[in-house]
Amino acid sequence: MTMIPQKKERCPITAAMDILGKKWVVLIMYRLLSGPKRFTELEAEMEISGRLLSERLKELEAEEIVTRHMYPEIPPRVEYELTEKGRAIEPLVQDIYDWSVRWHVQSPQKQNEC
Amino acid sequence: MTMIPQKKERCPITAAMDILGKKWVVLIMYRLLSGPKRFTELEAEMEISGRLLSERLKELEAEEIVTRHMYPEIPPRVEYELTEKGRAIEPLVQDIYDWSVRWHVQSPQKQNEC
Repeated sequence: MTMIPQKKERCPITAAMDILGKKWVVLIMYRLLSGPKRFTELEAEMEISGRLLSERLKELEAEEIVTRHMYPEIPPRVEYELTEKGRAIEPLVQDIYDWSVRWHVQSPQKQNEC
Repeated sequence: MTMIPQKKERCPITAAMDILGKKWVVLIMYRLLSGPKRFTELEAEMEISGRLLSERLKELEAEEIVTRHMYPEIPPRVEYELTEKGRAIEPLVQDIYDWSVRWHVQSPQKQNEC
């Protein structure tokens, strides 16, 4: 019986922060909480390079946090959407926002300015 | 009247993740939630180099998330403690832990194994 090599058990906090801690990840997920978006929409809404955005979206797809939908239209339409796992981060993003405004001396911009 | 150059208003989520996203920061804060600790205690509890731990603690002090107490004993005792701003992260850390265990396919290690 071949044992499936167990991923070395890691602290769940460290494991999660290895994903969420990467620059732009939480903000991309926050942006997708309002619904599926095209690459160009995400790119326009954040000061991020197309190359890095593409890299982050691929990583999020691999983590099953985002799914990529291709619509057979001309020209083809591609949209990115949070999975259930992705949407489950909403309370966490709200906590981050609240903590930052409450403590980080960051003026309470209207949330949609993120 | 000299205008104090306003820090370019930034999205509170981005501003917070610039701190929390750095490797080890959330785990250090999580460790200090159980009370003040010495440098050597933190170093022993986490697989982090002394140099990086020292760097992170200085950054957290500068952000007023951690305070450093020096006790006039022989040898001198130094402890690190979360400020109120630091302790306010507790719900966020719990959310990260819960999300990770629920979705990240990370076995539900007992929380104190983090």
